[in-house]
Amino acid sequence: MQYVFSDRMKDMGGNAIREIFKLLSRPDMISFAGGFPTASLLPVKEVGEIAGGLLRGEKGVEILQYGATEGYAPLRERIASFVSRYGITGMKSDNVRIVSGGQQTIDLMCKCFVNAGDAVLVEDPTYLAALHIVRTYRGVPVGVKSGEEGLDLEDLEAKIVKHKPKLLYCVPTFSNPTGRTYSLRVRKEIARITAKHGVMVLEDDPYSEIRFAGERVPSVKSFDECGNVVFTASFSKTVSPGLRVGYCLGDPTVMAKLTIGKQAADVHTSLLSQAIVEEYFARGLFDKKLSCAIPVYKEKKDAMHAAILKYMPKEFSCTDPEGGLFIWGGFDESAGIDTANAFAGACGRGVAYVSGESFFADGKDRRHLRLNYSAATPEQIERGIKILAEYFKESIK
Amino acid sequence: MQYVFSDRMKDMGGNAIREIFKLLSRPDMISFAGGFPTASLLPVKEVGEIAGGLLRGEKGVEILQYGATEGYAPLRERIASFVSRYGITGMKSDNVRIVSGGQQTIDLMCKCFVNAGDAVLVEDPTYLAALHIVRTYRGVPVGVKSGEEGLDLEDLEAKIVKHKPKLLYCVPTFSNPTGRTYSLRVRKEIARITAKHGVMVLEDDPYSEIRFAGERVPSVKSFDECGNVVFTASFSKTVSPGLRVGYCLGDPTVMAKLTIGKQAADVHTSLLSQAIVEEYFARGLFDKKLSCAIPVYKEKKDAMHAAILKYMPKEFSCTDPEGGLFIWGGFDESAGIDTANAFAGACGRGVAYVSGESFFADGKDRRHLRLNYSAATPEQIERGIKILAEYFKESIK
Repeated sequence: MQYVFSDRMKDMGGNAIREIFKLLSRPDMISFAGGFPTASLLPVKEVGEIAGGLLRGEKGVEILQYGATEGYAPLRERIASFVSRYGITGMKSDNVRIVSGGQQTIDLMCKCFVNAGDAVLVEDPTYLAALHIVRTYRGVPVGVKSGEEGLDLEDLEAKIVKHKPKLLYCVPTFSNPTGRTYSLRVRKEIARITAKHGVMVLEDDPYSEIRFAGERVPSVKSFDECGNVVFTASFSKTVSPGLRVGYCLGDPTVMAKLTIGKQAADVHTSLLSQAIVEEYFARGLFDKKLSCAIPVYKEKKDAMHAAILKYMPKEFSCTDPEGGLFIWGGFDESAGIDTANAFAGACGRGVAYVSGESFFADGKDRRHLRLNYSAATPEQIERGIKILAEYFKESIK
Repeated sequence: MQYVFSDRMKDMGGNAIREIFKLLSRPDMISFAGGFPTASLLPVKEVGEIAGGLLRGEKGVEILQYGATEGYAPLRERIASFVSRYGITGMKSDNVRIVSGGQQTIDLMCKCFVNAGDAVLVEDPTYLAALHIVRTYRGVPVGVKSGEEGLDLEDLEAKIVKHKPKLLYCVPTFSNPTGRTYSLRVRKEIARITAKHGVMVLEDDPYSEIRFAGERVPSVKSFDECGNVVFTASFSKTVSPGLRVGYCLGDPTVMAKLTIGKQAADVHTSLLSQAIVEEYFARGLFDKKLSCAIPVYKEKKDAMHAAILKYMPKEFSCTDPEGGLFIWGGFDESAGIDTANAFAGACGRGVAYVSGESFFADGKDRRHLRLNYSAATPEQIERGIKILAEYFKESIK
């Protein structure tokens, strides 16, 4: 049988990161490639107790039966008020939907808004799976420049005028891959500019709870006056990725359309996973466990940043994030380093990273790389950065 | 904000059944509308023990961490041999993927094979969510006639020649909505005819484990000689729908493409749910609990079929399934009953069903209805059918 795949999928390969994981079976490999939460912080004991208790309790049958596509009602209700910490107020259950991980929101938003050929604006660089998802709907990712303060507002408006996008996708807090956070001014302006032009915004916020320095900045959604912003977040970095629970919130009209999209995908998110997350909150574990986790992430970030300053060649510069899971670095053009080509050699020496090109809408970058610090120990981080630094120093022209 | 939804979603309403659920809040309502497994059979105690045990055990961290898109390795391995009971042999892990409920396979198959405007053949009538999903990819469902033995083979081949479909979707065992099972001959011929014309087949098998009469018939997949058949099944009716776990299997090339589609959707299925299903098998609970469940389903089906014979007007005829969850019935044209229009009145008398039109590719049927017998007790079933019968008798011209 000669398989004739759909136009949307025929040229689609696996995403770079999930492919890299298959190369990481070497037991002594130091991986800066993934975006996994630190394994030792996963709340196995607590989730085990909660799961057992839930199924022994009065909600056992409800949890194992079919549920509403909209999500588990107690969790939706909780999230409606929980998001006030992001400056989002006045939400009710009707504004909230539970999804099977925050990434599902990207899929549902593209499903509901993007026609073949439509532009979708993304930060350059951005979360690589978002680029993939846009392409599965035959949308066209268009990169918007960004800098220290976040999206370049002039470029954003120019690209809106030029490409008439249906959607802007952004990760304003501890962005993947850069680790940067958009300033308050940029957030307000994103809300204003997109509203003015009638462009939907998907604000993705998987990382903001992992903050180890600086102060919270209100979400773009908190400045949304016309209902064009959908906010999504995940419990993958704060509770457990294996449970696959996230949420999105926005105008009820948009939420109702996303629900129809989800009906036709996975019907609803695992009710056991949803009920576990709800009970995790009810027991006060969410903030309690995070307060233990954050110093661990800080120590790892500090170890990586210090090792970079100590070992990496002077042609290399990097971000110093206040939270999240990633440091983003790049070589001066003059160094002549091609991070994509260099990847195999780095793996050969036992250190993995993700090269920059996967994060750009045009896929052309050759000089950046993303370094994750949550998987390795501080000692492995120092050793891994030293190995990388020696390797790159040998390659600099 | 005026929302401009995508072409694929702008006219898409919620699926009929999930909308009906919202009407069923009346506590005394007798519902024959859903397709829920019997609540009292859900293995809450067993799943509770398993979940607690898994998270106390050595795999706790693995279960809460990110997992492979392909699925939980021990479950994939188990399924590769488990499916020999459907006549499917020679499978390895590489042929198997875990999905978030069997319905996700329909979504992924359409994503990977169906372009806008492509025909997708379905049985007339068929599972209504499949019609929805095909439409979210802007495919065009085309109904194939069916009868006692299953798909009408002449009509199947004629429609293949005429519409050049990418895909045939069918539920050969205890079909939703009819409850009928395709004969051995029809299964072999479906495999032969589709292979001859290079048409992919998605064989959906959520119900075959709920067999209370007759003998197993080998799957269409078991007659697949060229790799054009993908088989999918769900643990929703056999373990728990709330966990959202199903699987699909087929040629590794196709499975690899589906995996890329799933990467861009929900990344992977809840690992806790997958590990629970695997441990449920490992403890021998799958067949053990089914052997207790099947007599319960049989009793309910028998109660409904007997009540139909006893009470329903002579203009009504129905199937008498050997398994599954549904009886499908219809009125002679002469009766002048419009089951879609009659629905509100039936609900007013406290009994819900699903009218036939939602299950047909052209949505034009007005004289059939689907009756589910798994949710109500035998007493409720008798009472509900009696109420329905009286109501319809009053309406017959």
